[in-house]
Amino acid sequence: MDLAQLPAPAPDLGAAAPAPLPAPAPAPALDVAELRARTPGCARSAYFDNAGSALPTERVTRTVIDHLLLERTVGGYEAADLAAGRLEAVYTSVSRLLGARPHEIALVENATRAWDMAFYSIPFEPGDRVLTSRSEYPSNALAFLHARDRYGVRVEVVPDDEHGQLCLRSLARMLGQGGVRLVAVNHVPTYDGLVNPAAAIGGLARRAGALYLLDACQSAGQLPLDVREIGCHMLSGTGRKYLRGPRGTGFLYVSEDVVDLLDPPLLDLRAATWTGPDTYELRPDARRFETWERNVSGQLGLGAAVDDVLALGIDAIRARIAALSGRLRAGLAELPGVTVHDRGTVRSGIVTFTKDGRTAQELVARLLEAGVTTAFSFPSRARYDDRADKPEAVVRASVHYYNTDAEQQSLIDTMAAL
Amino acid sequence: MDLAQLPAPAPDLGAAAPAPLPAPAPAPALDVAELRARTPGCARSAYFDNAGSALPTERVTRTVIDHLLLERTVGGYEAADLAAGRLEAVYTSVSRLLGARPHEIALVENATRAWDMAFYSIPFEPGDRVLTSRSEYPSNALAFLHARDRYGVRVEVVPDDEHGQLCLRSLARMLGQGGVRLVAVNHVPTYDGLVNPAAAIGGLARRAGALYLLDACQSAGQLPLDVREIGCHMLSGTGRKYLRGPRGTGFLYVSEDVVDLLDPPLLDLRAATWTGPDTYELRPDARRFETWERNVSGQLGLGAAVDDVLALGIDAIRARIAALSGRLRAGLAELPGVTVHDRGTVRSGIVTFTKDGRTAQELVARLLEAGVTTAFSFPSRARYDDRADKPEAVVRASVHYYNTDAEQQSLIDTMAAL
Repeated sequence: MDLAQLPAPAPDLGAAAPAPLPAPAPAPALDVAELRARTPGCARSAYFDNAGSALPTERVTRTVIDHLLLERTVGGYEAADLAAGRLEAVYTSVSRLLGARPHEIALVENATRAWDMAFYSIPFEPGDRVLTSRSEYPSNALAFLHARDRYGVRVEVVPDDEHGQLCLRSLARMLGQGGVRLVAVNHVPTYDGLVNPAAAIGGLARRAGALYLLDACQSAGQLPLDVREIGCHMLSGTGRKYLRGPRGTGFLYVSEDVVDLLDPPLLDLRAATWTGPDTYELRPDARRFETWERNVSGQLGLGAAVDDVLALGIDAIRARIAALSGRLRAGLAELPGVTVHDRGTVRSGIVTFTKDGRTAQELVARLLEAGVTTAFSFPSRARYDDRADKPEAVVRASVHYYNTDAEQQSLIDTMAAL
Repeated sequence: MDLAQLPAPAPDLGAAAPAPLPAPAPAPALDVAELRARTPGCARSAYFDNAGSALPTERVTRTVIDHLLLERTVGGYEAADLAAGRLEAVYTSVSRLLGARPHEIALVENATRAWDMAFYSIPFEPGDRVLTSRSEYPSNALAFLHARDRYGVRVEVVPDDEHGQLCLRSLARMLGQGGVRLVAVNHVPTYDGLVNPAAAIGGLARRAGALYLLDACQSAGQLPLDVREIGCHMLSGTGRKYLRGPRGTGFLYVSEDVVDLLDPPLLDLRAATWTGPDTYELRPDARRFETWERNVSGQLGLGAAVDDVLALGIDAIRARIAALSGRLRAGLAELPGVTVHDRGTVRSGIVTFTKDGRTAQELVARLLEAGVTTAFSFPSRARYDDRADKPEAVVRASVHYYNTDAEQQSLIDTMAAL
C-alpha cells in the first residue's frame, strides 16, 4: 500500500518552534487528598520517581493480587478463563486511552518489547533511511544500529531546534530527500523535560509516505494521546510509569492501515495459526505482536490503571502535572548554584537539575535521607545528543498529580540546605 | 567456532528404543500431606492441569505479593534495588536446576520468548537444515516456517520410532547428510505422555556439529535436567508449569560456548551497551537475551519455585510423578471404552485419554463438575504428526507430586460412571 495516500494532518511549519498544544477545556480539579489516600506510598516519602516507576494505586495493586490469589486457588488457566471478559476489556480501555480501536492494541510484557515488536517487524530494505531524534532512548538507538548491521538501513539524526525539540524544518527537509522508511522518535525523552511535537512530526511523516513509530513510554498517562491526531502508525507504551500500572506490562498500538505490512520478528500460536505442515497464517490484527502466554494478573492491573486515568481525565492530569512541575522548576531555578536543564516549549512532568560541586548521585542520596525520592539520570548516555554543554548526570524529579506543593517545597528546601 | 569440537557425550544407538534413564538413587519420600497443606488450591479440586499451569505453592504466591506490596510502598525501582541480591540469586537457583552456570541464564517473560530469543538469534544461511520432531509444539513450528520464509532454511521432521519418540537412527542418518545447523525438539510434548531422548539427541547433534535447542517447557520441574549431560547448547523453560512458579516468567540457558555466535533478534540497553553514536557492544553472557525492564515480583516468585524444587529434590519429584501417573494410566486403561494415548518408553506426568462416544471437551466438563480439574488438548493441531489414527482431541490429566491416589481414583471413578 502507498502510505502517502493515508490521511495526513497538515503540519504547521510556520514557526521554528511548534505551536503550543491547544489549551485543554477546563478540567475538573482532581481531589488530591482522596487520590493520595488511595496511594499508600504517599505516606512514606515525597515520591518523585514517576518517570521511573510511579506509585501504583491501591486499586491496581489489589487487582493484581486478587488475580494471583485466584490463580493460587483454581489454577492459572482456569483463573484466566474466569477473567477472560475483564482481560478483553483491557484492550478496550487502552484503545480509549489512545483514540484507537481495540483490535489495534497488543498487550505485551513491557514498553521495550512493544517498541521492538513494531520496529523489527518493518520489512526494511538496504538503504532505507530511518530518522530519529537527538534525545532518542538508548534501547531504540541500539535497535537502529542493529537494523543497520542486519538490513543495511541508514540511521540519521534530525537536529534539535533552538528549544531542544526535534526541529520540524530539518525533518521536513530530510524527508524531502526521499527514501525514508521510518520516522521513530520518543515523545518525552527520559533525560529531559521537553515534549517533542508528536502531531507535527506525524503530519510530515505521513505526507512523505514514511512510517511513524512514536515511543510514548514517558508520555502515556501524563499527556493526551490520540493516535489519529498524532498521525502515528505505531505507538508503544508501558504500564509502570505515568499510568501507575504494574511492572511487567506494556502495550502497542498498530494502525489497522499498516498491520498487514508488518511481519513480527517473533511468532507464536497467538500471533499466527499453523494451518498445515508447511503453511501458516498471521493474525489480521495487532495481536500478531503478542504471545499466547502472558502475565494475566499484571495485564488486569494495567487495565485498572488505565481505567483510573480515563475516569480522572487526562486533561485534568496534564493540567496538574504542568502546574506542579512548572512551580518546581521555578523554585529550583532560584537556588544559588542550581541549574534546571529542561528544554522545550512544551514540557512534561520530568524536572532535571544539577547543583554546582555536587554529583547527581550524592544529591539523590541526600534527598532520600530527607524523605524525598528522586532518581539520577545520565544525559551523557544519549549518544546522539552531541551538545558540548550536556550534563554528565542530572537529578530527575518526575512529578505526578498526587504530588503536592508541600512535597515540592520539601525538595526545594533540602536542596537549598545542601 | 567449530561446534563439532565441543565435548560430545557418546550417543547410544544400540537399540532403536533409547535406553531408559538410569534409575535414580533412592529419593527421600516427599511429605505429601505437608506439601498439600502448603498448596491452598488442593482444597478446592483434584487438580490435574499441571502441564497447563500448576498450582503455585503458598511461598511462591507470598513472594510475589510481598514484592508487589513493597513496590506499592517504596516504588518499583526502589523495590527492585532492595531486592537486587535476591533477584541475582534467582540466576543461581535456575543455574543449579539445570547444571549450568549463572551467567548462562537469562530470565525472560515466558517460555515462548525464551525459546524465540534462542532460535531467532541463530545466524541462519539459505539452505541451512533445521531438524525437529513430529510432536513439536506449534509455536516452535511456526518459528521454523517463519525462518524458512525469512532466511531460506529447510525444515525437516525426524520420524518417530515405534514407541513414538524421536527416532535416533533416523536422526543420525539425517545428520549424516550434512548441512544441519540446528536440531530443535521438545523434551516432553504437550499432547502426549512421551519423553524424547534428550541426551541421546544431544550426543548426535554435537558430533555432527549442529546446534541443539531443547524446549524443556513441560519437563522443567518434573524431570532432571543437566545441560552438560543432555548436551544442549540452549534450553528454554517456563515458571508456571511443573516448577509451580508464577505466570509471566520464563528462562533460557545458553551455553557459554556458543553465546558469542548468537545475535539476539531484539536488543535493548540490558542486552547491549551504546558505546558511541554508531557503535554498540553486546553483553558477553546470556543476559544479552533479556530486557532491562522486567516483572520483578514474578521473577522473585520463580526463584522461590525453583528453590522449592531444589529443596525437595528432582529425583523424589520424578519418582512420585512416575508412580502416580503410571497408576492413573493403568486405572484408566481398564475402563471400558477408554483409550490411553500416551506413547514412549519413558513417560512424563502427562496422561492423555479419550472415551468412545464422548468428546474430550464434554469429558473435561463432567470431570470438573465432579471436582476434578483436567484440560483438553488437540493432537490434531500438531501438523508434523501425520499418524492416520491420531486422536482429534484428548483429555489431558497432568499429574504432579501433590496429587494423591484418592484424587486419581476420583478421576477414574468419574470416568467409569460416564
